[in-house]
Formats: sequence, structure tokens, C-alpha cells
Amino acid sequence: MFDPVEKLKEFIRYPSISADPKAAEGMKGAQEFVSGLLTSLGFTVEVVKTDLHPIILARRAGEASWPHVIIYGHYDVQPADPLNLWTSKPFEPAIRDGRIYGRGAADNKGPLMVHLAAVAQLLEKNPDFPLKITFLIEGEEEMGSPSFGPFLEKYQDELKKADFVYLSDTGIPSEEQMVITAGLRGLALFDVNITGPKSDLHSGLHGGVLRNPIQALAEICATLHSPDGSVNVPGFYDEVLDVHQWEKDELKKLGGDEKKYAEFLGIDTFYTRKGFTPFEAVRFQPTLEFNGIGGGYQGAGTKTVIPSKAFVKISCRLVPNQQPAKIKKLVMDTIRARTPKGVKLEFVDQHKGDPYVVVPPGRSNTPKDQSPILARAFRTTDAAVTEIWGKPPLYLREGGSVPIIADIKRVLGLDSVLMGLFLPEDNLHAPNESFKLSIMEKGIATSQRILSAVAKG
Amino acid sequence: MFDPVEKLKEFIRYPSISADPKAAEGMKGAQEFVSGLLTSLGFTVEVVKTDLHPIILARRAGEASWPHVIIYGHYDVQPADPLNLWTSKPFEPAIRDGRIYGRGAADNKGPLMVHLAAVAQLLEKNPDFPLKITFLIEGEEEMGSPSFGPFLEKYQDELKKADFVYLSDTGIPSEEQMVITAGLRGLALFDVNITGPKSDLHSGLHGGVLRNPIQALAEICATLHSPDGSVNVPGFYDEVLDVHQWEKDELKKLGGDEKKYAEFLGIDTFYTRKGFTPFEAVRFQPTLEFNGIGGGYQGAGTKTVIPSKAFVKISCRLVPNQQPAKIKKLVMDTIRARTPKGVKLEFVDQHKGDPYVVVPPGRSNTPKDQSPILARAFRTTDAAVTEIWGKPPLYLREGGSVPIIADIKRVLGLDSVLMGLFLPEDNLHAPNESFKLSIMEKGIATSQRILSAVAKG
Repeated sequence: MFDPVEKLKEFIRYPSISADPKAAEGMKGAQEFVSGLLTSLGFTVEVVKTDLHPIILARRAGEASWPHVIIYGHYDVQPADPLNLWTSKPFEPAIRDGRIYGRGAADNKGPLMVHLAAVAQLLEKNPDFPLKITFLIEGEEEMGSPSFGPFLEKYQDELKKADFVYLSDTGIPSEEQMVITAGLRGLALFDVNITGPKSDLHSGLHGGVLRNPIQALAEICATLHSPDGSVNVPGFYDEVLDVHQWEKDELKKLGGDEKKYAEFLGIDTFYTRKGFTPFEAVRFQPTLEFNGIGGGYQGAGTKTVIPSKAFVKISCRLVPNQQPAKIKKLVMDTIRARTPKGVKLEFVDQHKGDPYVVVPPGRSNTPKDQSPILARAFRTTDAAVTEIWGKPPLYLREGGSVPIIADIKRVLGLDSVLMGLFLPEDNLHAPNESFKLSIMEKGIATSQRILSAVAKG
Repeated sequence: MFDPVEKLKEFIRYPSISADPKAAEGMKGAQEFVSGLLTSLGFTVEVVKTDLHPIILARRAGEASWPHVIIYGHYDVQPADPLNLWTSKPFEPAIRDGRIYGRGAADNKGPLMVHLAAVAQLLEKNPDFPLKITFLIEGEEEMGSPSFGPFLEKYQDELKKADFVYLSDTGIPSEEQMVITAGLRGLALFDVNITGPKSDLHSGLHGGVLRNPIQALAEICATLHSPDGSVNVPGFYDEVLDVHQWEKDELKKLGGDEKKYAEFLGIDTFYTRKGFTPFEAVRFQPTLEFNGIGGGYQGAGTKTVIPSKAFVKISCRLVPNQQPAKIKKLVMDTIRARTPKGVKLEFVDQHKGDPYVVVPPGRSNTPKDQSPILARAFRTTDAAVTEIWGKPPLYLREGGSVPIIADIKRVLGLDSVLMGLFLPEDNLHAPNESFKLSIMEKGIATSQRILSAVAKG
């Protein structure tokens, strides 16, 4: 009998931080854990090498007439720092109050385990379960999936034959309201490095004669937003599509309490683009955020230097129909034009990803050529969610980014069914990440219904 | 025979970083080294305990009629990071091209060794040398000398009886031009901490609804200077005194090549308050500098968080007649008024120090009650410098800060003769700090002449 909680604990124990070269052993352990599990379920596992972390490609073949689903997930996790803010250690899973705590519990080890468990239990009940299943489990999602696009290109002839992609790497607002993610924001990331004097200087001996790179950086950053909350980069909003009416209607059904949301965030006032509620802004509007800043002396007490260098890390979240490369260029050009004299500017390009949107069946603007099996998956999802969670799901765009979803659409022509599973309080990318066990249980049941309904077709 | 270079090497080997609690052993070693050396020269050494690092109070008594000089120095040094930019290790002294390299070589172990060597050699030649000498060697100068004021208060009855203070903890523009520092900038330091959301957030799930603390901090910092290079804090310049004509005349004699200075700094354009050359600005104008900034993710690659916190470390250099406490309040009030909604502001107070100015004899505005022994010290300095360095010294204010000089003036009523000894290229507070051996040698000879002339009086 497959015990999903015990398996998840084992999975979390591997510190699979893809961005940290010192975590190579944890990455290998997590990969071998998943590969071993899929092999034990009867899958033919191919570990596809990449420049960085391998992709697990696990196939369950079947008859030509069987439908074919690709299930996606990732075995890598975010860095765990700041470590001192964790109640229990990030890679020692702990269960408290109906939640399992640990880095990756919600992003993405728990949700991935939901589908692994669903498949395991379906195959246990019926070894001849009539569905072709391909698992694609990558190890670079938290780094922007640099190897996943090339992988799709290489395997496209085989993978294009699938009917749709199924995954859980998105969220839901509460356990009472299941959400199928109908759209995701894209990403454009880069660093801005500013160099002033050629080395750190004594601020007494030389202070007052040159522009401090921290000052220059602050002056640049301060120009990038308007007081009304919009991004102050000419052309930034030019290609943003209007939001569909059905999306606004779904969001209205979701409701949402602004006061509670502000309390959850720990802020006393929102700062959104004019004309948008916080719930709309996070789904329908692009952003420019500063993810990190640094320069000069950061220790306790004082060190009276004028630093040579300062940097800021910028990420833009993009919405349909913005192009990451174009936005990146717009923002970089704007920063270049606004860089004061006396300092040098350098960009370090990071990753990017397209935004994505899918329209479930029955909406006014559902594409006419939508695959019948995808449409069936959506309708089954409606029924299964209503039965297990008490009411039908909402189809909403989400503020997060899963750039590979847009890659899959572009390269394979496949749409995705994104079944949300994590909660706002799961603390993704933050200390004390957790995953709720009752959601895990309901998720497994839902996933079984959906896969069964697709298989029967 | 006292070998100053070998002694200096030994002195540098103690990693006496006063701000680093892990360097306690290095601090103790440096203190015992200096105490031992002074004991061996016949001084009565008292190691005065403070809350942090002890002050060495070493007395050479004498006849009532003998003049009395206090020689000041400090045995602590700045932190050595970033370590990877050092050619040889910071606490393993190395001699290359006529320079001794190591943290503290120029600030202040080398210059302090100049006076220790001068005294050692004078006493070697004449054990009955007719001068009362008190060494005050502290261990908290790089932390803002928090214990030195209270120490002066406690020992003021004894120390007030001295005629003047003599020290070398300031700079000269080149080996060709000795400078006696006639003024120093004061200091006012504090940190600004900004808190946005109560914990780090996923920039996809929550980006676009709240003000990022890095953005808020950048917006605050960007308001603190005007495009013309002045500090944009109302009232900041209100109490700045006009510069004396004799000071401008001295500075003209110094000359200075702006192109060479820009090359030395590694910048392509200066950024000074309007109406001041770089050489004037650094001496006669107050500043507001950012010494360090931090917040969010600072590692390689990306982490798409909205950080909870960001901070900046600010230092103001002040000129006569600015009051550090008043300026600190002005800047803090201004920052408070300019902090945007949606974030919390907190200040962490750091140290401060008054600016200082002294007028050598013969200038139009020399105080009438200037001590005759101080006046003799100045005149002797003129003669000794002319003989040993080839031309008379200039009397200039300097951009750096030695807050204890103003404390000494306030508590003891004593002026100081500040004989500059380090060069711009000595890299104080920066990697590859060094001290030039030929300057050390000339410094010892000059110090001997000055002390002899004072003693003879």
C-alpha cells in the first residue's frame, strides 16, 4: 500500500536546492527517489541529462486508442534561507496541526506526490488501467527551467502525441474553494550592477566629491514606479490585453476579504495600480519588483566606506500578451537612460518565461479547435471537484509563473490543466513552508477521478 | 636598538578588529604588545578598563617645570573584508616596493609606531630627556571611541595639566607635502530599517499589491541629494561656518590635479556641491553618504521574493559649526516625513563626533590665549618639516574624522598638533592597506625634533 505522507517525508529529506552547487547530493537523492518510485510503479524511466539537473522522463505505454496524459512536476526546491526563521529544520519534515512542514512541502513535492499517489493507487486497483501516462519531472524549475525548452524540442515528436498536460504547481485561496489556474504571469529577470569608484573608499577622505553607487542605484530604482502604483517604464503596458468578462465574473465569485489579506501580509495599506483591487492586480496586472539589493558594509555597527559597487535584482511579472524579451529590453533601456553620470551600469541577464492563458470549455471565447479530451478533462474536473470539495472550481488566472506551461503550449501545442493545491498560508519560497494533509488527501481523490474519467473516454 | 619596522610587523600581526567580537584575542594581543613596549621604555603603564576595549594610559613623570605632551594613538583596526581583494593576507605583514602591507599599517599602527620609535630613540640617547609624556592609546577608535569621552572625564584633572596633544592619524597628499591637520569633519551615523510585509513573500503570488521595502528605501534615499550635489535635507547647511581666507590660501598652495584625482578614484566625473572644487568639497563641506545597503536575496541567480526588510547605513560628515545630534535629528525627521505609506520605519542610532578646527600661530584669527607651548610646537613643526621634508607644512582641514580631537578640546581644553603621515594610496579602510617606509623614517626624525624642541623650552 502506497503511503503518500511517508513518501512525501522521504522526498522532503533531500535538500534539492537547484540553485545551490553545494546541494548536488540533495538534487541527486531527490531525482533517484522519484525515478525509483516511478520504476516501482511499472514506468520505464529515462533520466535525461541536461547541462545542469536531469529531467525524469517516465513512460507508461499502452494501446494506440488510449488517451495520453503528461503529468508535470519538479523535484527541486528554493533555497531555505533565512534558516533562523524556521520552527523546524527545512529538510527534516515535521507534522504539526495537520500540516507537513519542510522546504518544498508545497512547492512542488507535496502536489507532485498527490499525482504520484493517485497513479499508484489507480494502478494498484487496475494494473491494466487504460491510460497512457508520461511523467516529466524536472530539476530546474526554481532556476527558471533553462533545460526544459531544449528538452521539449528534442522530444517533441513523441510528446506532441499526448492529449494534454496535467499538473499541480499553483494555488487556491482556501480549502473551501478549488481553483483551476486558467492563466499565469510570465517572467523577465535581470540584475543591475552599478560601479562607482574603482575600490571602496574612506568616506571621510573622499566623501563629497563623487556619486556613491548606492545613491545612483537608489535614484534609478526610485524612478521605476509612479505614485499611483504603476510601473513607470514607457511602453510597459502597451501590449497588455484587456481582461475577459468571464474572468472578472469568476473572480467576483471568489470574493475575498481585503482586510484579511492585508492582515495576512502584515501591511496597513495596499499599493496597487490605480483602478485595480489587490485581487485583480495580482492576477491581471504586470509588475516590476526588487527581489534583492546589496552594496557596501552590511555588518553590525558601522564602516564608513563609500562602496565601489551596488546591485539590485529585478523581476517583472508579465501578463498576456507581453513578450518577456521585449519588456526586458524596455526596462533596461529605461534604466540606461536614467543612470546618472559618474557611475558605470552593467546588466546580468537572468531567465524569462512567457505568460499563459487557457479558456475552459463553454466560455464565450473558448477556441473552436480545443481538443475533445482536454475538454473532457475540464468537465470531469468540474464534476470531481464539486463532489469532493463541495462546490465547483473557479477558473482563474494566477499571479505566479510556471514558464514551462507557455513553453509546452508553444513547442507541443498542448494546453494544461493546472489543479491548484497550495494555500496562501503555505509560505512558498519563505520560511516554514508547509502543505496541508487534508488537501493532500482530497487532491489524491480528485486526481484519481480525473484520470479515470479521461481514461474511460 | 629599537627597530620600528620589525616592531610594526609584530604589531600588525594582531588582528585587532574592535568591531568584531570574534577578534577578542587579537585585541588583547595588540593591547599587551603596546603596553609591554611602553613598559620597556620606562613608562608606568595603567590599562584602564572600559565596557569594551581597555585604554592604555602610560605615564612618564618628570619635574614640575617640564613641559607635558599627550601622545594619542589607537591599537584597533577596521574589519579586513572583502578578504579576496587582498594581495597578501591582512594580518601577515608583507613588505613590497618600499611599503609595508597589512590591515592597520596606515590606520593607525604605522603612524603610532612613528611616535613610539621617536620616544624610544630620544630616551635611548638621553634617559633624562626633560619632557613629561603621557601616551593615551585606545582600542575603540574604529567604533567611534565610545569609551574615550567618559575616560577623559574621569582622568580630566590629571590630563588637563598637559600642554597639548600630539598625534598622527591624518593624511598628506604626497610625500613631497607635509600637512598639519588644522581641522576635521565630525560624524553622525545611523541605520535606516524599512519593514514591508511581515515575512518574505512570493513575488508572483503577491506582487503588485504592496509596496516593496526595497522600493520604499530607494525612494527615500533618492530624495536625500539634489542634482547639484548638495544634501537635500532642509536646514542641513544652516550652521556651516564660512571658510577662513588663510585656509583657502593654504589650499591654493597645495594645488592638486583634478584629472589625477579622478583617475585615482576611478571615476569619469566628479559630483560635488555646486561652487566647490573636489579638493575644497572634501575639506570644507558636509556630506551624507550611504555606507551600505541590503535587503532580500543577494546570492547568485534569482529568488523571486518580495523581501520583508531592507536597510541602509548612513553617515554624515560634518564641518564646524554643525552639531552632530542636531544634524542626526534633522536627517531622521526628513526621512520620516518622506517615508511612503505601507512600510514601517525604524532608526538604529550609531556613533557621532563633533567637527574640530585649530588655528596655528600667526594667522589673522589665531586665538589670543593660545598656549605658548602649543605655539612653540607649531613653530618647531614648521622648522623641522622644512628641514626634513624640504618645504614647510601646510595647515589644512581634512575630510576625515577623529572625533576624540573635539572631545579632548571640550573636556580638557587642549588643542592638538595633528601631523599627517598616511598617503591617499595607502588604502585606509580598504583592501591592501599599506604604509610607506620612507615616510615612517622621516616621520620618526620629525617627531624627534618636535619633541626635543618642546622639551627644551
